[in-house]
Amino acid sequence: MTILARLITSLALMTALFSSPARAEDGYDLWLRYRPLPAAEASVAARHMQAIVPLDDSPVIRSAAAELARAATGLTGQSPATSRRAGAIILALASNPAIASLRLDTSTLGAEGYLVRSVKMEGEPVTLIVANADRGLLYGAFALIRLAQTNTTLNGLDVSSRPKMQLRVLDHWDNLDGVVERGYAGQSLWDWWTLPDYRNPRYTDYARANASIGINGVVLNNVNAKSESLTARYIGKAAALAEMFRPWGLKVYLSARFTAPIELGGLPTADPADSRVAAWWRAKADEIYRTIPDFGGFLVKANSEGQPGPRDYGRTQAEGANMLAAALAPHGGTVMWRAFVYAETNPEDRAKQAYTEFKPLDGTFADNVLVQVKNGALDFQPREPFHPLFGAMPRTPLMMEFQITKEYLGFATHLVYLAPLFSETLQSDTMARGKGSTVARILDGSLEGHRLSGIAGVANIGRDRDWSGSSFNQANWYAFGRLAWDPDGSPEAIAREWSAMTFGPSPEIIATSVKMMMGSREAAVDYMTPLGLAHLMGTGHHYGPAPWISNLARPEWNPVYYHRADSAGIGFDRTASGSDAIAQYAPPVARILADPKRIPERELLWFHHVRWDQRMASGKTLWAELVGHYDRGVDYVAGMQREWSGLEGKVDAERFQKTATFLAVQLREAKWWRDASLAYWMSVNKLALPAGVAAPEHDLAWYQAQRFPYAPGNP
Amino acid sequence: MTILARLITSLALMTALFSSPARAEDGYDLWLRYRPLPAAEASVAARHMQAIVPLDDSPVIRSAAAELARAATGLTGQSPATSRRAGAIILALASNPAIASLRLDTSTLGAEGYLVRSVKMEGEPVTLIVANADRGLLYGAFALIRLAQTNTTLNGLDVSSRPKMQLRVLDHWDNLDGVVERGYAGQSLWDWWTLPDYRNPRYTDYARANASIGINGVVLNNVNAKSESLTARYIGKAAALAEMFRPWGLKVYLSARFTAPIELGGLPTADPADSRVAAWWRAKADEIYRTIPDFGGFLVKANSEGQPGPRDYGRTQAEGANMLAAALAPHGGTVMWRAFVYAETNPEDRAKQAYTEFKPLDGTFADNVLVQVKNGALDFQPREPFHPLFGAMPRTPLMMEFQITKEYLGFATHLVYLAPLFSETLQSDTMARGKGSTVARILDGSLEGHRLSGIAGVANIGRDRDWSGSSFNQANWYAFGRLAWDPDGSPEAIAREWSAMTFGPSPEIIATSVKMMMGSREAAVDYMTPLGLAHLMGTGHHYGPAPWISNLARPEWNPVYYHRADSAGIGFDRTASGSDAIAQYAPPVARILADPKRIPERELLWFHHVRWDQRMASGKTLWAELVGHYDRGVDYVAGMQREWSGLEGKVDAERFQKTATFLAVQLREAKWWRDASLAYWMSVNKLALPAGVAAPEHDLAWYQAQRFPYAPGNP
Repeated sequence: MTILARLITSLALMTALFSSPARAEDGYDLWLRYRPLPAAEASVAARHMQAIVPLDDSPVIRSAAAELARAATGLTGQSPATSRRAGAIILALASNPAIASLRLDTSTLGAEGYLVRSVKMEGEPVTLIVANADRGLLYGAFALIRLAQTNTTLNGLDVSSRPKMQLRVLDHWDNLDGVVERGYAGQSLWDWWTLPDYRNPRYTDYARANASIGINGVVLNNVNAKSESLTARYIGKAAALAEMFRPWGLKVYLSARFTAPIELGGLPTADPADSRVAAWWRAKADEIYRTIPDFGGFLVKANSEGQPGPRDYGRTQAEGANMLAAALAPHGGTVMWRAFVYAETNPEDRAKQAYTEFKPLDGTFADNVLVQVKNGALDFQPREPFHPLFGAMPRTPLMMEFQITKEYLGFATHLVYLAPLFSETLQSDTMARGKGSTVARILDGSLEGHRLSGIAGVANIGRDRDWSGSSFNQANWYAFGRLAWDPDGSPEAIAREWSAMTFGPSPEIIATSVKMMMGSREAAVDYMTPLGLAHLMGTGHHYGPAPWISNLARPEWNPVYYHRADSAGIGFDRTASGSDAIAQYAPPVARILADPKRIPERELLWFHHVRWDQRMASGKTLWAELVGHYDRGVDYVAGMQREWSGLEGKVDAERFQKTATFLAVQLREAKWWRDASLAYWMSVNKLALPAGVAAPEHDLAWYQAQRFPYAPGNP
Repeated sequence: MTILARLITSLALMTALFSSPARAEDGYDLWLRYRPLPAAEASVAARHMQAIVPLDDSPVIRSAAAELARAATGLTGQSPATSRRAGAIILALASNPAIASLRLDTSTLGAEGYLVRSVKMEGEPVTLIVANADRGLLYGAFALIRLAQTNTTLNGLDVSSRPKMQLRVLDHWDNLDGVVERGYAGQSLWDWWTLPDYRNPRYTDYARANASIGINGVVLNNVNAKSESLTARYIGKAAALAEMFRPWGLKVYLSARFTAPIELGGLPTADPADSRVAAWWRAKADEIYRTIPDFGGFLVKANSEGQPGPRDYGRTQAEGANMLAAALAPHGGTVMWRAFVYAETNPEDRAKQAYTEFKPLDGTFADNVLVQVKNGALDFQPREPFHPLFGAMPRTPLMMEFQITKEYLGFATHLVYLAPLFSETLQSDTMARGKGSTVARILDGSLEGHRLSGIAGVANIGRDRDWSGSSFNQANWYAFGRLAWDPDGSPEAIAREWSAMTFGPSPEIIATSVKMMMGSREAAVDYMTPLGLAHLMGTGHHYGPAPWISNLARPEWNPVYYHRADSAGIGFDRTASGSDAIAQYAPPVARILADPKRIPERELLWFHHVRWDQRMASGKTLWAELVGHYDRGVDYVAGMQREWSGLEGKVDAERFQKTATFLAVQLREAKWWRDASLAYWMSVNKLALPAGVAAPEHDLAWYQAQRFPYAPGNP
C-alpha cells in the first residue's frame, strides 16, 4: 500500500465530496414541475402525448400547445411531434370544421369552459380539447396536464368543465417601492424600476401558474394605492406586464386612489359629483385603454383606514363607485369596490359597520360594479363567521375577498392549508332565499341572477425563489384558484392533486402531506383564537399573541376590544343585549347564532360573552375547554412535525429541510401562542389550569415584553 | 392528404412550440458555471482531473475538494474518483509528511497563499495544491478551477500566489428590514426574519462565490446601523450565517451603532471616556465571541450624515475607535473606522474635511484599528482623484473603501466595468515617500511596514436571481475580489478571465465583452461628469442628471456646490486661491495639480475653475471639449450596443436579451445625461453648441421636471 493510499481520508469525507449537485428542487417550478413519471406510468402517458396539434391559432392557443409540449416532454421523456398521428392531443375551437362531424355540444361551456375527450379521428385515437374560445383551450390543456401529473390514465377521457365565477382575481398588495404589504415571500414580483424595458421571463412563469388554475385577472398594486400608478409612466409599465400576461388569459387591473384627480390632475377636489372630476377619470380610463386595450378595471379601497373616498365629499360609496364605473363602461371595464370600511369615529361594533353603510345602497350601483366583501366582518382571522353582507344585498353582485397570504396566520412559516377556511365560508348558508342560499351561490350570481360574478384572493406571492415563502404556502395559491373555478370543489381532493403535482406521485408523500394539510387550519384556530376568539395578534405586524393590548388610539385596534375578557367571562356580546350584530343575518341564521345552546361552539365567543365556568357540550367548563383547544392546536403541530420527519429521504432534500425547519418554528410559536394566551387569561380570570396541563413557560411580563421591530409585511 | 394535415398550422408556430426549456442561464451560477468545455479541451482537462484527493482534513479543505469535484464533473463531464491515480488533484498542507520529499518552499505563502504545481508522486503525474493552512488550499483549488475554465492547459503548472491585503471585505449596506441602501439587485440576501432557523442554501453559494475570488470577510449590516443588530436575537442570526460561511473562509463583521450602550444598555451616555460605556462594549464583545468565536469585528460610521459618534461627547474619532478596539482586542477582532466625515455646520470644502479631522490623529489609533478611507474625497463619483489621506497618515494602517454597487454610475442598468476605476486609484502615486508610493503600497502595508492591511467594497449583491442585477455587474464583484487579492492585477486580464468563466470559452464572446467593458467606465465619466466634474446627480436617489439643483438645506448636497458654473467658467477652485484642498497632497503631487497646464485634463474641473473659452490640449475651447466628451460617452454606449448585438445567438438567449435591454436603457440615459447637462450649461454660459452637435431633445424645464419618486436604493 502506498503512502498516499494510507493517507486517504475517511470514506465519509469522500462520500460528502461527490454528492453531485443535481437540479435544485427550490420550489420555483410550483405544481408545474413535469419531472419524469415512473417508467410504467410514463409509457402509458406517452402513448397519449405523441403529438400536440392545434387546429386553430392565437397567442393563447400557442401558450396552450407550448405548455402541453413542455409537460409531455418532462413527464414522459419524449418530445411530442408536431403533426398528427395516433395518440395526438388535438386542440380545436368548437367552430373548427375539422371537428364538425363529432357533433360535440359546447353550448354550456361559455367562453372559458372546455371539453377533454378521448375520440377517434379518421380512425386514429386522439385526445381532443375543444372550447368555444381560446381561453377555454388553455384551461383544457392545463386540465389534461393535471390529469397526466396526478397519475390518471389518459384513456377514455370525457371531462367537461367551466368556471362558476367570471372574475377570478389575485390582489397584489404590492407597493411601488417593492414592499409587499402583508407579504412574507420577499419583495414585489414587479420590478417597476426596470419595467417596461426589461421583461423578466419570470413574469411569464407567473402567468403560466395562474393560467394553470384558471385565474384570469391580477390587480398589480396595493389597495392602499399611490396615485403614481395612474401616471403615463406607470401605465406603460403595467402595459408591459399586460402584454406578457395576455397569452395566458390574464388581464391586469389597477388599484385606484380616489384623490388622483387632485394629485395628478391638479383639480381642487375629487368630489364624484364634480363634472371636472368625472371628466378626469374618463380621460384617464381612455388613456389606459389606449395602452392596455383589455385592461380589466379598478379596485378601490375608499374611506377606510386612512384612504380617501367619496364620503370626504359627502357622497355615498355608490356615487364614488358609479363615477369610476362610468369612466370604464365604454371600454368594458369593471369596478371592484371594497366594502371593508370602519371608522374610529364610529362607536358602532366594528363588525357591523360595513353592513350598516352598504346595505342601504343595494340596487344603486352601476352595472359594472362589483362590491368586494371580505369573507368575514373583521379582517381575515383564522376563523370568522361569514360576512353578514352576503345575502343582504340581493340587487348587487358581491365579490369575495379572501386572503391567501397569512397575515393573521403565522406568516409564511406556519403550515396552514387554507382551502378548508375558504370552503367553510363558501358553503355557509345565508338562508337569504331559504335553504341552499350559500355564499358560493351568491358569488356565482346564480341565486339572484346577476350578470357579473367574481372572487379575489390577496396574493401570497413575492420574489422569493419559491414564490410563496414555502412549499405548503404554494398550496394556498393553488387551492384559491381551484375554488375560484369551482367553489364547490373538495379541499381534500385539491390537496391531493396539489401534492401529487408538487412532490410527485408517491402515495406515501401524498397521503402524509394531505393528512397534515387537512387539519392544519383547525390547529391554527386552536392555538391562536379558539372558540370564536379573534384579532388577538400583536399590534401592527399581527405576529404572535398580544391579547393584553389595550392602549392603542383606535379602540378597535386593541385586542381587548375583541375578546372582552373579565373576571366573569370572555367573548363579545353581539346578541340583542350587546351590539346586536346578529340581527344583520337572515332570521333563521340569526336565531341559531343568538341561542348559546344552538350556535356552533367554534363561533361561540364571536357572538356571546360567556362565563368562564359555563358548561360546554363536552361537559367541561369554558375555561377547561379553551385550554383544551390550545393544547390540541400545539399537539397537532407536533404531529405534523412527526409525520413530515417520516418523509426524510423521500422528499427532495431542499424542500424537505425547509419544511422541517418551518415546522419547528411553527411548533415553537404554537406553544408561545398557547402559553402567552393562558398566562394572560389567568391574569384576568384568576383560575388555575386544569389538572395535568403544563404551566406557561414564562410569566406574563415576559410575553408582554417581546418586540419584533422588523417583522415583515408591516407597512 | 387528410383534413387534419391540411389544417396543421404554420411551421413557425410549430417551431415556437417545441423549443424545449433548457436549464435557464439566469445568471445564478455567476462565474462558477462549470458548463462542459468543448470536447477537445474537456478531454485534456479530464486527464488532469481524474481524482480529487485531499491528504488533510478540515471543513475548509472539504469545501475545496467538493468544489474541485463539482467543477471537474461540470467541465469534463466525468466524475472524478476519490482515490489517487495518475491525473489526480492532490490537496496537502505543507506540513503533511506525504509531500516532505518534494521539499517545496512555502515560506512566503503565509496562511492564505498556495502553490499549484504539476509534479510526479510515486511515478505518477498529479497536480498538487499545497498551502500552509486550509484557506490556502481553498484559494488554490479555486485558482486551479479558474485555469481549467479559462482554457489553460493544465500541463506543467507552477503557480504560486498569496494575497497582498489581509482583510478583503464586502460591506453590505443592508438594513434589518431587508432594504439595501444603494442596492439595485433586490432586497437583502439575508432573510433576518427566518434566521437563524432557516439556512437558505443560497448563503452557501454566496460564500462559495466570495471564496472563489479570495474575499475573506463580510460586514452584514449597513454602516447606517441599527442597534438591534447587536441584540442577542440578531447575534444569533449572524451566528447562523457565520457557521455557513466558515467552511469557505469567510468571517462575519457587524456595523456597530455608537449609541448602542444607550439604546440597548440603558446607559445615560455613549461617551467613550465613561467606564460604564467601555464595560458595556467589552461585555457585548464577549457575548458576540461566545456565539461567533471567529467574529471579525466592527465597522463604524461615526459623526457622519446623522450617525452618532465620539464627537457628540467631545471626544476624538480615535478615542471612539480605541474604546471599541479595546473590547475586541482580547478576541483578536478588528475595528474598521470610517474616515467618511463631513458636516453641514462646517464651511470648509467638503473634500477637505476628512483629512482635516483625521490627519492630526495619525499615530493615536490602537493596534487593531484600520481607518477606512473612500477612494476619493467625495463619494464614489465616476472619477475622483485619490483621497488625500492616502500618504498622509503613515503611522496608521489605512483600509480602502470602494463602491461596487453603482450608486452614482447609473444603477444596475448601466454597463460600467469598475476595475479600471479601482486600478486607477490603487496605482495612483501619492509620492508620500517619493516615487512609487502608490495607494496600493499604502494599503498593503508595505510602504510603512504595517501589520494590518485591508480593502473593502460596498457590495452590489441582492436577492435578485443573478445576484447583482445584471451579468456585467457580476464582473465588478469579481474584479473587486481579484484586485483585493492583488491590487496590481490587470483590469483587462481580469475582464478576460471573468468573461471566459461567465460566458464560456468562445474567443469571439470574450473579445467582444472585454472590449465593451474596458472603455465603459470612461464612457460613463464622459456622459455624466467629464473633465473632473462631480456629484451632478439627482438629489437623494442619485439617479440621472440634476446639475441645476441649488435649493437643498445642506450646501454640499447641491450639485451647484460642486460644479460652480457661472457665465465665465466652470469648476471648483481648490488651488491656493480657492479652498486650497490641493495643499492636502504631497508637494510633488500638489505642484502638478495646481498647475492648469500640467494637471491631467480628466481632473481639471475638480481642482480648477476654468473659463469656458480656455483652450485645451486639443486646441478646442473648454466648452467644445466638454461637449465632445458628452458625445463621446454617448457614442461609446451606442458602440457597445452594436458590439453586443453581434453576439445574438452566440450568448444564451436569457442573458443576451437582458444585456441588450439594459444597453438600450443605458443609451437612452446617456443621451439624457448629455442633453440635460448641455441644456443646463447653455442656460448658464449662454454659448451656442459647436457646429454639427445636435441640440438637446427637450428644453431645460423638461429635464428639471423629471421626478423619480420610487428610485431604488434610496433610504
